[in-house]
Amino acid sequence: MRIGLIGTGTVGGGVIEILEQRAKYFQEALGVQLELACICAKTDEELAPFREKGYAVSTDAFAMINDSTIDVVVELAGGYEMPRRWLTAALEAGKHVVTANKALLAKYGHELFPLAEEKDCHILFEAAVGGGIPIIRSLQEGLVGSSVEHLSCIINGTCNYILSRMSEAGLSFEDALKEAQAKGFAEADPTFDIEGIDSAHKTALLASLCSDTHVDFEKIHVTGISQITAEDISTAADFGCTVKLLGIYHRVGNRVDARVHPCLLPKEHLLSSVNGVLNAVFLQCDNLGPTLQTGAGAGRLPTASAVVADLVSLARSTDTGSRCALPMGFFSKENEAELVPIEETSARYYFRFAAKDACGVLAAITGILAQNEISIESIIQKNVNDPGKVSIVVITEKILECKAAAALQAIDALPNVVDKSQMIRFLM
Amino acid sequence: MRIGLIGTGTVGGGVIEILEQRAKYFQEALGVQLELACICAKTDEELAPFREKGYAVSTDAFAMINDSTIDVVVELAGGYEMPRRWLTAALEAGKHVVTANKALLAKYGHELFPLAEEKDCHILFEAAVGGGIPIIRSLQEGLVGSSVEHLSCIINGTCNYILSRMSEAGLSFEDALKEAQAKGFAEADPTFDIEGIDSAHKTALLASLCSDTHVDFEKIHVTGISQITAEDISTAADFGCTVKLLGIYHRVGNRVDARVHPCLLPKEHLLSSVNGVLNAVFLQCDNLGPTLQTGAGAGRLPTASAVVADLVSLARSTDTGSRCALPMGFFSKENEAELVPIEETSARYYFRFAAKDACGVLAAITGILAQNEISIESIIQKNVNDPGKVSIVVITEKILECKAAAALQAIDALPNVVDKSQMIRFLM
Repeated sequence: MRIGLIGTGTVGGGVIEILEQRAKYFQEALGVQLELACICAKTDEELAPFREKGYAVSTDAFAMINDSTIDVVVELAGGYEMPRRWLTAALEAGKHVVTANKALLAKYGHELFPLAEEKDCHILFEAAVGGGIPIIRSLQEGLVGSSVEHLSCIINGTCNYILSRMSEAGLSFEDALKEAQAKGFAEADPTFDIEGIDSAHKTALLASLCSDTHVDFEKIHVTGISQITAEDISTAADFGCTVKLLGIYHRVGNRVDARVHPCLLPKEHLLSSVNGVLNAVFLQCDNLGPTLQTGAGAGRLPTASAVVADLVSLARSTDTGSRCALPMGFFSKENEAELVPIEETSARYYFRFAAKDACGVLAAITGILAQNEISIESIIQKNVNDPGKVSIVVITEKILECKAAAALQAIDALPNVVDKSQMIRFLM
Repeated sequence: MRIGLIGTGTVGGGVIEILEQRAKYFQEALGVQLELACICAKTDEELAPFREKGYAVSTDAFAMINDSTIDVVVELAGGYEMPRRWLTAALEAGKHVVTANKALLAKYGHELFPLAEEKDCHILFEAAVGGGIPIIRSLQEGLVGSSVEHLSCIINGTCNYILSRMSEAGLSFEDALKEAQAKGFAEADPTFDIEGIDSAHKTALLASLCSDTHVDFEKIHVTGISQITAEDISTAADFGCTVKLLGIYHRVGNRVDARVHPCLLPKEHLLSSVNGVLNAVFLQCDNLGPTLQTGAGAGRLPTASAVVADLVSLARSTDTGSRCALPMGFFSKENEAELVPIEETSARYYFRFAAKDACGVLAAITGILAQNEISIESIIQKNVNDPGKVSIVVITEKILECKAAAALQAIDALPNVVDKSQMIRFLM
């Protein structure tokens, strides 16, 4: 199988390295031949080291795509618009595609997957979600004897590192972010990760695979972690809980409940001990029961390894002319999931109110909760460093999101409530 | 694809149930047709409910196997000799095979896998190891971009339940076993599970997949859990450790280190929090880093679900004439792994000595350890309920197994050492 690779950055470089390392094994043990026929990048400088090693290289990705001897196009360049054009051209030319680009698939998958189905080509994307965890393959193949009822996942290493460090070392969000940046676990502009956008891309893809529908990532509820404070983390610990940024999927009748937001998890929950940059996907299936997969979420070789596993799959299927992956044609605008609006979801809630230490403030807050039919499971009033201020933490029983939102809005309008109130949902 | 099923017990019944439940989904969403063409069992009584439902049934498995309209034989009867004859006949007749029978594959896989390769047939066995965890598929496909350096796994739910209950509730081994039997988690004769035989079958299969060689389960070191006491569990906890029965694989140069024995694990280790009847497989891979998969290890529907996933794979591959699984022909006598003898392995050790509370006993024990060049990391002398007796626990630094064995033999011969000494290895 002749491979055309676009992108020689972290993951692209890793793929070249693994193919060099394991090509002989693939041929001898698996009987598949993976030939890196052309490497594309933007500039000659990026390509120079590969040209020196004897690879065919090009700065013209479209020329490579239209080369009739290329069987599969591997896109590892990142971004949206150029990859969209490359992959469309590759599929139009009848080539299989492998990509690690979750942003692209979340945004344009509804064009690309149906096109692939029409052209009888595969788009494989194991590396797009949880680099080192073969979760796409599990959902498409290993778990096909079971229906996924619930999925919750930690799929952004940056956020999980920050929350883990806030929990272990009592750091503030800002200090944990700085530490993550210093260690290379967060970008200089971390918005994409900490505001949950990256998790939303991945959650939309996983929810789509679980539901056989197209879940539009732009329509799912997303809250990031930038508003989580050290006080929230330590108060959660007092309640035996950990705070994690989760991607969540539930099947609710014919509708899909998919969202991304911080969650309180009991410390006994399997996801609770997944720390640092590790990723994890927890599934509750009808026949299989609960399963968890944990592994590296990102990084050069874990991600490249997933790309190479896709290439081996493809080679084994193209050699014999079979389909190797489940049909993905369902991922189309015509088959869009009906999402459960966040207002209609329900959960137990953690509320934290910052109030003046004034007479009647607790009565006012609990009065508003009562008006909104919110039952209180427990309540703690804590002194904070700031004299004259108190912190009131309320854990509610299971209530509707719309009630929670209405109560918070009313409470935030109270004269003695000084900061915007905090709200974190429990996973269960 | 026309399926012939042998066995209508727990798992066989589960497969029938899932096929009834999901056949429409497989056809509509995946485009594969799974037709249960014949159900075989030993007696007419077992078959009666299925005949009533309209299935073709038979007490003659060989006749079904030789029916030219059957594409795949699913063996869920258990045992060794009849399944060996059935599967040999099925493969000779050019039929694919799906089985959950780890004992059969560990014992006769070296005949069956090469025969399958010769006949261009598949043997799929996802359900044979860790029912609810798609670990076979992961090793064969998802992790193929990486080489497995180390594997450790909890793959016997009975043992894990017993050890978990000893740890959580301070039960003795005997009481925990009785509880497991009362809950249906252990057989009336639990030998096969508690002595580690079942784990050895599964570990041999996993080690074979990791090493592309045939690991003979009869040659790997096996110690079960029947000698683990409540005192060992609580002392391990004092050292921040949990005791688990692990299957272990290490690649050591061109040799394979595969074994099954109880292990001390630090509480932070991912396997440490896998409790009850859950199974888990931890892998350390060169490119992928560490990954863990956890899920139901046994049970009617989890195991049946894995069988059905294999059937879907097969249907997708037979419809197009492709191979769907990695070649397993390496699993043959000609390609037997060279095993590292247990004497040549090394680990940190936990020793527990029961001694008379007599002058000089500690000096005698530590003297023998010193003669065998065993460095002590820590040592605790504890009083026990029995007056006149003491318990001495030694944690060693990393030493060779042969030194540990020699020292224990000498110590057991000391006049003041009253019971056989306990030895448990640390995982790391």
